[in-house]
Amino acid sequence: MPELRREPIMGRWVIVASERAKRPADFKNPPVALKSEGGAGCPFCEGQEAVTPPEIFAIRAPTSKRNERGWKVRVVPNKFPALRIEGNLDKRGAGLYDRMNGIGAHEVIIETPQHLLSMTSLDEGHIKNILTVYKERMLDLKKDTRLVYGLIFKNVGDPAGASLEHTHSQLIATPVVPVRVQQEMRGGRIFYDYRSRCLFCDIIAQELEDADRIVADNNADFIAFCPYASRFPFETWILPKQHLTHFENITPELIDSLARMLKNVLTRGEKALNSPPYNFLIHSTPFNERQIETYHWHIEIIPRITRVAGFEWGTGFYINPVPPEDAAKYLREIQI
Amino acid sequence: MPELRREPIMGRWVIVASERAKRPADFKNPPVALKSEGGAGCPFCEGQEAVTPPEIFAIRAPTSKRNERGWKVRVVPNKFPALRIEGNLDKRGAGLYDRMNGIGAHEVIIETPQHLLSMTSLDEGHIKNILTVYKERMLDLKKDTRLVYGLIFKNVGDPAGASLEHTHSQLIATPVVPVRVQQEMRGGRIFYDYRSRCLFCDIIAQELEDADRIVADNNADFIAFCPYASRFPFETWILPKQHLTHFENITPELIDSLARMLKNVLTRGEKALNSPPYNFLIHSTPFNERQIETYHWHIEIIPRITRVAGFEWGTGFYINPVPPEDAAKYLREIQI
Repeated sequence: MPELRREPIMGRWVIVASERAKRPADFKNPPVALKSEGGAGCPFCEGQEAVTPPEIFAIRAPTSKRNERGWKVRVVPNKFPALRIEGNLDKRGAGLYDRMNGIGAHEVIIETPQHLLSMTSLDEGHIKNILTVYKERMLDLKKDTRLVYGLIFKNVGDPAGASLEHTHSQLIATPVVPVRVQQEMRGGRIFYDYRSRCLFCDIIAQELEDADRIVADNNADFIAFCPYASRFPFETWILPKQHLTHFENITPELIDSLARMLKNVLTRGEKALNSPPYNFLIHSTPFNERQIETYHWHIEIIPRITRVAGFEWGTGFYINPVPPEDAAKYLREIQI
Repeated sequence: MPELRREPIMGRWVIVASERAKRPADFKNPPVALKSEGGAGCPFCEGQEAVTPPEIFAIRAPTSKRNERGWKVRVVPNKFPALRIEGNLDKRGAGLYDRMNGIGAHEVIIETPQHLLSMTSLDEGHIKNILTVYKERMLDLKKDTRLVYGLIFKNVGDPAGASLEHTHSQLIATPVVPVRVQQEMRGGRIFYDYRSRCLFCDIIAQELEDADRIVADNNADFIAFCPYASRFPFETWILPKQHLTHFENITPELIDSLARMLKNVLTRGEKALNSPPYNFLIHSTPFNERQIETYHWHIEIIPRITRVAGFEWGTGFYINPVPPEDAAKYLREIQI
């Protein structure tokens, strides 16, 4: 019998098709693999700094120069930005409708000067640099009062929307709070009004108690699990165990722990699913949100190994052919 | 300057990237095309009735027999159903979480005995039969008090999630109201509380006034337009001009009009975009909903010609590279 499970944050129901449960080997997608050797053909490789728009920020050798070699992590504007930083919002109505200018930031975080496909090829110290850059860019964009939200995300592989293979992340900062975050915050608020506790903290407690959806819990500061009502097979979330609202306030100690956890979890996913295309996203509280009891930042990792069809678009209902308990077991038992 | 537009129903903001606007020819997807000739290899072809699960309903020649030749439109259970019709809901908690048995219906509507790829190859009289079958199946499933919602949808082409090419639709009936419909109803309710009018009726009035997003308005009963804050390029909605809440109450006269409108709009999409993969969905009011001022049934047609990446998943924000005014103009000017 398939099971309907309610995702406790937004109230979304997911169909967990346990009867025809799939195993990792049932997903026969070609692995994400390097198609080129980088260098002159890749705008993100060391030596190609002149090809990108001018550098916004970098971690680089003290003697090195901006827009030249010698960097470890480099941030540049997206060459084809979805939003633009110059101008006024000019919010206005249009009959029944509402519009504003597409003001915002759209940055690319080039994670390494080497032409590597995956963040997992980097050592933990280097991943720590990347996470530090995420933090610094969020803090900087937060100063712009036109912007209320910053989303850090990563597309790996064609089917996940990546247009360049050299490992990179993106940051989009927007002048409105995205609808999905609004809905999650609303869910958190309803729960808090009823129970006076953070919903996400309660989820962590429940996951530790149930134990069968945990992917990794070898870390004092973070936990990784497959959510109870996972929308996608092998969907995995990473949450700080403490109640923390804004990703950009992460301490250097927590960055250390997160680098370890992220490498651990991404490596498990790559090994279990043969280097799948995937997205990862950091969901954080809007920059200036004061109601801090009701939201808890987290990372969502979504392998893109199934297709989303009409039923999902039409309803927000998802059909997940792998129970999260099975997915977590596979991921947990991978030798890394 | 890109533009941010607010979708007035759910409050979702969409980035309309007008500067790098794409034209239909910029989407270079292979057209959806028949790969086989049907017959013995296709479970939906005439003569293969024994291959499917037993027939639930059919429009067929008076002398013909159930599960044999002689049908025009045929409904069978999905061979791999997402939900099952037998059993009790058995709603229960699981610690913090909520679950119930996966009770529901999952039916396939085989639109024609011929091995055709598209509903647009059928004449309007035959499309009328298909729409009548949609109505009859919804009315029948509505009698089951365990079920509260019925979704009719269609996946065309691999990228849209179709697993068989022979033209067909699906119906999934569920014991809970899907989250997306809940959110749309909530938007309709907030608007009604404020203005005492149906939001969807107001949208129709606005679209008729603006005129530049209309795809087809040659029909007394239905209007087709690209929504102001379209999430996807060439997304097109069809709405009854009257305030009608439940699709399943559609009259024979309206079925006539809808068959004409649907063939018109789908044909335009196929010609403009070179037979793209697409989904269509009927959004209707939950079976037993009494508050009938606030929701208005409609059809959403979504060509699947762009990829949904991490940013969209993470935020519910969509980036649409074709302003709906451009998309509507292309579709409107197609010669059919």
